[in-house]
Amino acid sequence: MGADEFDVIRGLFAPLATHPGARGLKDDAAVLELSGATVITTDAIVEGVHFLPEDPIATVAMKAVRVNVSDLIAKGARPIGAFLTLIWPNARPAEELRYFADAIAGEFESFSIALLGGDTTSTDGPLTVSVTLLGAPLGGRAPSRADAKVGEDVWLAGGDIGSAWMGLQLRKGAMSLEELKRERDEAAAQAESAALEKEMPDFLRLPGQPFDAEAAWLMSLYLAPMLRTECAGIVAAVAGASMDVSDGLLADARKLAQASNVALRIEANAIPFSPPALRWMFSGGDVRKLISGGDDYVVLFTAAPERRETIQSFDADGSLRLSRIGQVLAGEGVTIVDRAGAPLPLDEGGYAHKLGR
Amino acid sequence: MGADEFDVIRGLFAPLATHPGARGLKDDAAVLELSGATVITTDAIVEGVHFLPEDPIATVAMKAVRVNVSDLIAKGARPIGAFLTLIWPNARPAEELRYFADAIAGEFESFSIALLGGDTTSTDGPLTVSVTLLGAPLGGRAPSRADAKVGEDVWLAGGDIGSAWMGLQLRKGAMSLEELKRERDEAAAQAESAALEKEMPDFLRLPGQPFDAEAAWLMSLYLAPMLRTECAGIVAAVAGASMDVSDGLLADARKLAQASNVALRIEANAIPFSPPALRWMFSGGDVRKLISGGDDYVVLFTAAPERRETIQSFDADGSLRLSRIGQVLAGEGVTIVDRAGAPLPLDEGGYAHKLGR
Repeated sequence: MGADEFDVIRGLFAPLATHPGARGLKDDAAVLELSGATVITTDAIVEGVHFLPEDPIATVAMKAVRVNVSDLIAKGARPIGAFLTLIWPNARPAEELRYFADAIAGEFESFSIALLGGDTTSTDGPLTVSVTLLGAPLGGRAPSRADAKVGEDVWLAGGDIGSAWMGLQLRKGAMSLEELKRERDEAAAQAESAALEKEMPDFLRLPGQPFDAEAAWLMSLYLAPMLRTECAGIVAAVAGASMDVSDGLLADARKLAQASNVALRIEANAIPFSPPALRWMFSGGDVRKLISGGDDYVVLFTAAPERRETIQSFDADGSLRLSRIGQVLAGEGVTIVDRAGAPLPLDEGGYAHKLGR
Repeated sequence: MGADEFDVIRGLFAPLATHPGARGLKDDAAVLELSGATVITTDAIVEGVHFLPEDPIATVAMKAVRVNVSDLIAKGARPIGAFLTLIWPNARPAEELRYFADAIAGEFESFSIALLGGDTTSTDGPLTVSVTLLGAPLGGRAPSRADAKVGEDVWLAGGDIGSAWMGLQLRKGAMSLEELKRERDEAAAQAESAALEKEMPDFLRLPGQPFDAEAAWLMSLYLAPMLRTECAGIVAAVAGASMDVSDGLLADARKLAQASNVALRIEANAIPFSPPALRWMFSGGDVRKLISGGDDYVVLFTAAPERRETIQSFDADGSLRLSRIGQVLAGEGVTIVDRAGAPLPLDEGGYAHKLGR
C-alpha cells in the first residue's frame, strides 16, 4: 500500500479523533487525563482465524470493534476511546479501505468511542485488526471473572447461545439449508424471507439457494455480534463475577469457575437458545456444539439470589434475553444438567485460538 | 498452535503481570487506577515489513517493545505497563515461543514495564507483535510534535542517524563488507573483531565472511534499537516539540515541521553520524540515504536557545550523542544545508510503511 493510500485512510479516520487526548492523530502518542478506574481490553481478529477471507470488510470492522466492546460490557463499563492497529494486505482492493474506515466510523459513533491513535502497516499476510479499548466503569468497580461466590445465581444476558455458531456452519457449508429447515413452519419462514429479501445484502445469501431470512439472521450474528450495551448497567448494578462469552459458553463458564475457585451447575433447559437452535437440537443436533461453538458475545455473570427481581426489572420486554441458567456451588468445574438433573457428558476443550483475553 | 502451547506462554508471561490492575492476566480486561496524565502509544511490527523472517526471535521481541518505549521517551514519559498482542505463525518452532517470552521478560524488566494484558492468536501468516504501552510523563506535560516555536534550536538525542539503516543493508547483502571497509583503519578494526568475536552470537555474523565487529554493531542497531531512557528526562525538562525518529530523520523532521507550522533548517555536519557512516559518506555514499533510512529510534526535539547549557549538562560524557542540529524558522518544510550553507537537493518521501504513529 502506498503512502498516498495511507493519507486517504488518515483522512477518513481523522474525524473519529474527537477526544482532545488524541491530539488529532498528529502526534506519536495519545495523552489522556484519566480519573478513577479505567478498564482496558485488547483483542485482535485475524483473517482465516476469526473471520473468513470472503467475509464482507464492513462486518470485519464491526466484529473487530464489537469483540472489544463486549469485554467492556461484561466489566460493567462504557467505552471511552480506542487504539486501532490495522495490518492491511497489499492484495486487497484499495476501495475496501474506504468501506472499512466507514464501518469503523459507524461503530465508533454508535458505541461513543473516540479514536485515540493507532498504527497501520501493509502486509503480504492476512488482514489483521487489533483494537485496544479504554472504558469507564458505570459502577464503583469492574467485576472480575474471579468474583463468583457460592450461593449466587448464574445468569446470561444480551443474546442467544449457539446462534452465531450455526451461522458460521451455514456460511461454511458445514450445515445445509435443509438441516435448518427441519421441523420449521415453512410457510411462515418463506413469508418472512419474501418480506425481507429485497433489503438484504448479498453476503447474507447462501450461494445457489433461495434467500432464507432465518439463515441470514444466523449468519449476521456470526459476521458481527449484536451487542446490548444495556447489559453493562446490569453488571454494574448487581454482578458478582462477570465475563463475556466469546469462546463458547462451556469453555468460558469453566474459566469463570476456575478463576473463582467454585463449581457452576448450569441447567441446559434454561440456556437461551434461539428457535432455529432449539429445532436443530430437537431434530438430532448436539447441544454440546451450541455451547462450545463460540462467537456468542453475551454476558455471563453471577449475582446473589436476592437480586433476582432487580435483575428481571432490567429486561421488562425480554429483549435482553436475560436468563438465570444455574447456581454457583462449592467445588470446581462446570456441570450441565438436563431437565431430570442428570449431567450431560462433556469433553474438555472449547474454542481455543485465544490466550487469556 | 495448540491450547497446550498457549498454556506454556501464559505460564511464561504470568510473572510479568506484576501490576495489580493486570488481575494476574486472569480476567478479560485490566482495571487501572490512573491519575494525572497518561501517555499511551501503540506500534505493531510485522514479519517481512519491520523485521526479516530470519531475524532472531529475541531481537524481534526487543524491537517490538523498544519501538514503543522510544515513543514514550520522546514524550518525556516513563513506562508503566503494556498490552501485548501476539500473532504467532503455526510454522514457527514451539521453542521459539519460549525464547520470545524470555526476551519480552528481559525487556519488561529493564524498562520497568508490567504486563497488563494481551491477546494471542495462531496464524498461517507472518509473525506480528503489537504492543500498546502506557506511560507517565516525568514532567507536567508530554510535548507534542506540534509544539515547536520559531527561534528554538533543533536537537537530536539518544544515538546516531543512519547506523541502523547501514546495518539493514549489510544484513540484506545490499551493502558489502568491502564497502564498509573503505577508508577504515583495518588493523584497528581487525583487532577489535578478534577481541569480540568469541562472545558474538551467530546472527551478528555475515554468512561466508570473517567476523567483523563494526558490521555486527551496525546490524545489532537495526535488529533492536539501543534506547537511552535518560532522554525522557531531557525532554521533560526542556523540550518544546518532541518526537522519536523512526521513519528517517528527514521524514520525521518534516512531520514535526508540518505539525508545528514551522520550517526546520538542519545543518548536515551537525547530524550525529557514526564513524562508519561518516567514512561511507566520504567514500561516495549518499547522505540522503542515511537521513531517510529509518529505524534510528532517537529523539528529535526543539528547545529555547537559553536552555543550551542545561541540555548539555545532561550529557557530560557525550554518550547520549546530544546534538544541536539546527533551528526552527518561520515557513514550512525541512532544509538540510551543507557546511557552506547551501541546501541539499532532497526529494519527498521517507520510509512510508506506517500511518501516523
